[in-house]
Amino acid sequence: MKRRNFLKKAAFGTAALAASTAVAVPSVLAKKKYNLKMVSTWPPKFPVFQIGLENFAKRVKIASEGQINIQTFAAGELVPAMQTFQAVSDGTVEVGSGASYYWAGKVRAAQWFAAVPFGLNAQGMNAWFYSGGGLKLWEEVYAPFNLIPRPIGNTGVQMGGWFNKKINTMADFKGLKMRIPGLGGKVFAKAGGTVTLSPGGEIFTNLERGVIDATEWVGPYHDHRLGLPKAAKYYYFPGWHEPGTVLEIMFNKKVYESMPKHLQMILDACAAQTNVWQLSEFEANNGEYLEKILAGGTKMYKFSNEIMATLRKLAKETLEEEAKKDLMSKKVNQAFKAFQKRIGAWGQFSEAAYHQLIAEKIKLKS
Amino acid sequence: MKRRNFLKKAAFGTAALAASTAVAVPSVLAKKKYNLKMVSTWPPKFPVFQIGLENFAKRVKIASEGQINIQTFAAGELVPAMQTFQAVSDGTVEVGSGASYYWAGKVRAAQWFAAVPFGLNAQGMNAWFYSGGGLKLWEEVYAPFNLIPRPIGNTGVQMGGWFNKKINTMADFKGLKMRIPGLGGKVFAKAGGTVTLSPGGEIFTNLERGVIDATEWVGPYHDHRLGLPKAAKYYYFPGWHEPGTVLEIMFNKKVYESMPKHLQMILDACAAQTNVWQLSEFEANNGEYLEKILAGGTKMYKFSNEIMATLRKLAKETLEEEAKKDLMSKKVNQAFKAFQKRIGAWGQFSEAAYHQLIAEKIKLKS
Repeated sequence: MKRRNFLKKAAFGTAALAASTAVAVPSVLAKKKYNLKMVSTWPPKFPVFQIGLENFAKRVKIASEGQINIQTFAAGELVPAMQTFQAVSDGTVEVGSGASYYWAGKVRAAQWFAAVPFGLNAQGMNAWFYSGGGLKLWEEVYAPFNLIPRPIGNTGVQMGGWFNKKINTMADFKGLKMRIPGLGGKVFAKAGGTVTLSPGGEIFTNLERGVIDATEWVGPYHDHRLGLPKAAKYYYFPGWHEPGTVLEIMFNKKVYESMPKHLQMILDACAAQTNVWQLSEFEANNGEYLEKILAGGTKMYKFSNEIMATLRKLAKETLEEEAKKDLMSKKVNQAFKAFQKRIGAWGQFSEAAYHQLIAEKIKLKS
Repeated sequence: MKRRNFLKKAAFGTAALAASTAVAVPSVLAKKKYNLKMVSTWPPKFPVFQIGLENFAKRVKIASEGQINIQTFAAGELVPAMQTFQAVSDGTVEVGSGASYYWAGKVRAAQWFAAVPFGLNAQGMNAWFYSGGGLKLWEEVYAPFNLIPRPIGNTGVQMGGWFNKKINTMADFKGLKMRIPGLGGKVFAKAGGTVTLSPGGEIFTNLERGVIDATEWVGPYHDHRLGLPKAAKYYYFPGWHEPGTVLEIMFNKKVYESMPKHLQMILDACAAQTNVWQLSEFEANNGEYLEKILAGGTKMYKFSNEIMATLRKLAKETLEEEAKKDLMSKKVNQAFKAFQKRIGAWGQFSEAAYHQLIAEKIKLKS
């Protein structure tokens, strides 16, 4: 490297470097290298999610001049998807990624940091994390597990899901078997449905064979990729259960805290960069895949106002019941509600009004 | 570089480097320091915008271990606000920040990267930049000026502005003197209004004294700070003229390109981090300030559908007229429209449906 800098200097000469006055400061630091393993809940090469993690690792390596070298593993390659949280907590691996509602069984309060039914959208979740104390609170929730969380992506508003029949009234949910995770799943159960939790790889087959009657997944881009238009006919919106689902990265706390400040800053900056990139990927691609799905004959429906109002009531009850079960959940639920209140009606005058303004209506089949 | 690769290989060695095993690699690098000056179009300590730049500089310094040291200057402290572009282009300073529509006089095509009337919102602009080729195109537009641009913030959907009278029909725009920049200003002129371009510091006085009849600024958070509720009574939405205004950072191209890859990556990652942070700040604070403004007696109005439809038609004409004036503007306009088309109606099923879902209506005075 000395040689490299020397060559560069020789090339630029002395006076050439006006502004960026290059002062050669001989550094005699012994630089620690951090070779980290990152596991995830996603299949290999999974667009946006796993590709996002791979991009993150590349960027971190470049920005740190190779000081941090993160080797990425997809679900099952090193540990099973659903052991990601535990593996990073234990220090078996140093980094992990998933969605925090997957760990509800270990830490109930984690659910609020992924997706809250009728809660915040992507812009709102980011605002909560970066400007409303949400990330600090998330750190507090994960600290006892020896973990440090960061948002690393967002799906945007999801679709409501794929159904093998029309959903006209609340009665249509009764006995319906649906793959639906997180707090949304709890609301669905309250509405009389049966919740199943198939991993991504089994959803298509289960739905096609009638093992389940319905599933939610992400949105047009990812739903199309999973083949869901071939497994069910009725595509519902909006995704009341996941209005802006957050993807997380988590670092083993001891490893993260052992790092010098500049490396922590690089990890944080690259995580935020990946966060905005993931949402951008969905925003850029969902429209195109929605058209493909509709062109294939899928019928698209909006949940009725009555169904939405009832589910919203059930969601409110579910959140309060969950919040009662432990002190940390209570604290997080209160903080979340306080931030929703702080944002208030702003969306009505900004984003909602904007969408009315530019709406190009697609006529829905009925 | 050969030598560097050799060192890297040697360091990674055989297999000795398990998980974060810290291996001390003696570094004998002579590190160039980059002492950069950053000027901007914003007043000192201006919330979100100038504070965002200061935070950016701090993060870059930490992440680069002091290799990049950016000294920030507010408007007028080193060069006048409106000379920012030229100063960075010339190399008088190395970094600058503003909004790209300020430079329309020098480079017409720049306007599309700030705000397009009835165009993309914040999420759409980010998607265009990061996932739709928009940033590459912006680089192409700025390259002849020896500049490299990056988005570093976004206001979200703005408010439509402050007026000293009710706007009931298009006729009410005739002869109205309004402070309104960018392509929106050109549309307003087409509607029969007179455009003025007062800098931020003069808006309040001009509006209060009747030098102008109306102004747009940003949104509740910043409008309240400027005292606008005391200068005009009628507060209109939505901000059809600026549905997601992008704040930019621009680097002198020669300086940026002279930097090693890791420093370029740090600048890029921290810019993206600041981008999402700025939008988060507006999202977190606008609701609260909107309530303050309404509590102070301001009346809030929505532009009528007829006015919006007419302005949208005028906006379309304006964009095509501007696009005809030079080849680069034509290219950018076409790319922008193609990306809008690619996003298509997705917003109708995601964000628009979400806002209908969670809307807490504030009753408007009429």
